[in-house]
Amino acid sequence: MTRYQHLATLLAQRIEQGLYQGGERLPSVRTLSTEHGVSISTVQQAYHLLEEKQLITPQPRSGYFVTPRKAAPPVPAISRPAQRPVEITQWGSVLELINARLEEDMLQLGSGMPDISQPTIKPLWKVMSRLAQKQDLRMLNYDNIYGVPALREQVARLAIDSGCQLSADEIVITTGCHEALSVSIRSVCQPGDIIAVESPTFHGTMQTLHGFGIKVIEIPTDCETGISLEALELALDQWPIKAVVVVPNCNNPLGFVMPDNRKRGLLALAQRFDIAIIEDDVYGELVYDYPRPITIKSLDQDGRVMLCSSFSKVLAPGLRVGWVAPGRYLDRVIHMKYIGTGSTATQMQMTVAEFIRLGHYQPHLRRMRAHYQRNLDIFTHWVRHYFPCGICVTRPQGGFLMWIELPEAFDSVRLNRELRECNIQISVGSLFSAAGKYRNCLRLNYALPFNPQTERALAILGAAVERAMECCMPAIPAAAELPEKSEGGTAVNQ
Amino acid sequence: MTRYQHLATLLAQRIEQGLYQGGERLPSVRTLSTEHGVSISTVQQAYHLLEEKQLITPQPRSGYFVTPRKAAPPVPAISRPAQRPVEITQWGSVLELINARLEEDMLQLGSGMPDISQPTIKPLWKVMSRLAQKQDLRMLNYDNIYGVPALREQVARLAIDSGCQLSADEIVITTGCHEALSVSIRSVCQPGDIIAVESPTFHGTMQTLHGFGIKVIEIPTDCETGISLEALELALDQWPIKAVVVVPNCNNPLGFVMPDNRKRGLLALAQRFDIAIIEDDVYGELVYDYPRPITIKSLDQDGRVMLCSSFSKVLAPGLRVGWVAPGRYLDRVIHMKYIGTGSTATQMQMTVAEFIRLGHYQPHLRRMRAHYQRNLDIFTHWVRHYFPCGICVTRPQGGFLMWIELPEAFDSVRLNRELRECNIQISVGSLFSAAGKYRNCLRLNYALPFNPQTERALAILGAAVERAMECCMPAIPAAAELPEKSEGGTAVNQ
Ligand SMILES: Cc1ncc(COP(=O)(O)O)c(C=O)c1O
Ligand SMILES: Cc1ncc(COP(=O)(O)O)c(C=O)c1O
Repeated sequence: MTRYQHLATLLAQRIEQGLYQGGERLPSVRTLSTEHGVSISTVQQAYHLLEEKQLITPQPRSGYFVTPRKAAPPVPAISRPAQRPVEITQWGSVLELINARLEEDMLQLGSGMPDISQPTIKPLWKVMSRLAQKQDLRMLNYDNIYGVPALREQVARLAIDSGCQLSADEIVITTGCHEALSVSIRSVCQPGDIIAVESPTFHGTMQTLHGFGIKVIEIPTDCETGISLEALELALDQWPIKAVVVVPNCNNPLGFVMPDNRKRGLLALAQRFDIAIIEDDVYGELVYDYPRPITIKSLDQDGRVMLCSSFSKVLAPGLRVGWVAPGRYLDRVIHMKYIGTGSTATQMQMTVAEFIRLGHYQPHLRRMRAHYQRNLDIFTHWVRHYFPCGICVTRPQGGFLMWIELPEAFDSVRLNRELRECNIQISVGSLFSAAGKYRNCLRLNYALPFNPQTERALAILGAAVERAMECCMPAIPAAAELPEKSEGGTAVNQ
Repeated sequence: MTRYQHLATLLAQRIEQGLYQGGERLPSVRTLSTEHGVSISTVQQAYHLLEEKQLITPQPRSGYFVTPRKAAPPVPAISRPAQRPVEITQWGSVLELINARLEEDMLQLGSGMPDISQPTIKPLWKVMSRLAQKQDLRMLNYDNIYGVPALREQVARLAIDSGCQLSADEIVITTGCHEALSVSIRSVCQPGDIIAVESPTFHGTMQTLHGFGIKVIEIPTDCETGISLEALELALDQWPIKAVVVVPNCNNPLGFVMPDNRKRGLLALAQRFDIAIIEDDVYGELVYDYPRPITIKSLDQDGRVMLCSSFSKVLAPGLRVGWVAPGRYLDRVIHMKYIGTGSTATQMQMTVAEFIRLGHYQPHLRRMRAHYQRNLDIFTHWVRHYFPCGICVTRPQGGFLMWIELPEAFDSVRLNRELRECNIQISVGSLFSAAGKYRNCLRLNYALPFNPQTERALAILGAAVERAMECCMPAIPAAAELPEKSEGGTAVNQ
């Protein structure tokens, strides 16, 4: 971190902690320069950075002021889903979401799309075109059903960062993380079986479970520490659960990273009840802190963790290159892969392997982490600015997805329908629950490079939320009356 | 057809019909030139062609002689599988076959690989590299779940040749024909349901059915006219069958093209019993005769036919680009596709669409048809030459797969194991039956450009078969005692 970044971070913390209040004048450049023993230009750069993040505002000839803003909205409380296995439906709503991807002038705040426009991804094109020029016949042939060896080796190498000792032989390349999850689920479950999931859970996983006739039991999940081990244990005691699916690193939709001791606890539970863990690490590389967090797979001794991931979020989803490290279920996984798609397209595997081999992966990853973290700052600021009081907002530790909880009676499905007229698309919370919960929640994407159009969309969204909240509630209390953190998920309704 | 080709065909027919017998001297070049009113050099070219096909042999200074050979082996009789639903297993053997693809010095006579080395496929590389240079961001984005529109339009256009009026909206792009079959099957069946299949049936389809817990009932199938409608009707009367899977054009493994009236009959049966038809047309474009045969889909009025295909056999399997036209089951198919893999890799779809748009498809197809037809001639010749009497051999009408039936007691699984020591790999017949039939059969691939190594392999294979036949039968009758065509599938044992 350079000097000015360091200084900016320090100042931002002071603002966050309320040391400098909204509207207050900040120390002069000269004062800070003396106080911190840095040059005038370092202070100026730091102030510029804070200005970019919209934390401070310059006033001509009077210096910098803290941008006035509301109190930070609280984080949603632990979820409280129904404690019994339910069947999943809602395919219609998911389809709507998928189809919205096709509407070009729609602002895709509901999608899971990463930003694919950064310059560090450019070498991918060169690699692609160079491979085509080589006319390597292996690119046209049926691939090894396990995947291209060169790519499996690179994936094994990357896994070291998450604490995993994997050999290329233990990795199976798939058509995106979607197929990794799909084959993993089918490898350990039959139709009619029960699987435990976090609540809320990524709607793609929900649909996969649904499509294979599997029931889910949704487990209460905390927005900062993840799935409740206590509730999971109760459920395991009560139901013949075959596996648990979790997204412990940079959870979709909640953005948390599960603490290491809870990862250990989850593995211990899985061992005790002899169930499989399907670990979806698709956002794991995008955690903002360095080094990245470990996977549960890295703790696994007896091969019960099936680690699923892909290059969709870090590089680009159109590549459809994912993988699974299925541990003891390797043979089943290969069988399920064979009957689903046969082998995976060769050329994109070779492209990604070469991109990594040439050293383009880490610089790209670093850039994307910084980009999303910066976007989060701005986005959070906008949400505070444009959304009404009485909402809860997650504090994602990585990735590019934010979860917003509105008062219980709020109907995000109706909101979504209204917004489509303004060409704005969001993810409605109810997609993330089989039991029909979270209709009062939304998930927003902050991956895209921001522009005035994005800010306007946030303003429209905030206003629409405000209007809808006025309809669904007799009166909105003033911000000052709200507790700092909601309790039991209903505080927002007080 | 040029003059010399015409003359060569005529002479080949005469040889085939026995007008010129094995070992007999053929008319001199001058005689033929006079007889047919063509130039000396035309006759010489015709003789050269026949020599290439190994139908005739030149003897220095004495002219051309008919290559001595045995009588054409008969075609296998109609199959007689068990008439009850059975569960499929044999995944171990299929895995062995798939893994053999990885052994570089193995002669892959058992694979379903097309020839990807012909010059007409070269433009594919150029298209690929040009697309990469364009840096079209759509190639990195999540694709439309239906597939790239440009490709769906091209597929709809190609379908016209098989008599189909399809719009792009009715087509879903998949990860190869594998995924097309997989989503189709899952769209109309639940685990425990029964599906009717041809007997023998492509092992990939068998495994897919197995993997989803579906039972199959194998229907007797004729090597020249396809699935027995009479037997199918009986089965439909007796069992709650949900669908029938057929490969009516260029069947794998039998190579037949189902006559149009039988296609009509099959559709009528499906209507009467209200079942779906899953039509696998993956080899349909490779039928040697022009124009190509119609699909059952082209006759379909009420959307019950799900047409599955891919570019794997015509272009290259490594592309993993296939499609399904699922008729009335479109919504279910999209759902099943979403939960299996999400969308298909974009770049290869765009590559194929552009290859077709630029007019490279038809010339390539014409070349491949001619190539495989020519290979079939040579291959058939080798089989006659190197294999013992007492075998039945199919006469494929397209594609590049030949099915050989050996005496009932023959064990192709053991043969396969022996051959692997010589680095030759075949497909054992038992993979093509859930009920464990066809252990006495093999499927051979004649796609690859031939060289002395291929001929040597055929010689080794023929000798191994001969040895094995000697072990499993008391005595092999002389060729002359064999009937021209086997009856009831047991004549070969006489
Ligand atoms: C948690 C999670 N898992 C899996 C996927 C699917 O990833 P892929 O595009 O690689 O199939 C997504 C994408 O939205 C996701 O958010
Ligand atoms: C009859 C048949 N259907 C489907 C397939 C699978 O084709 P694809 O490679 O496009 O998945 C094959 C390939 O072997 C086949 O022979």
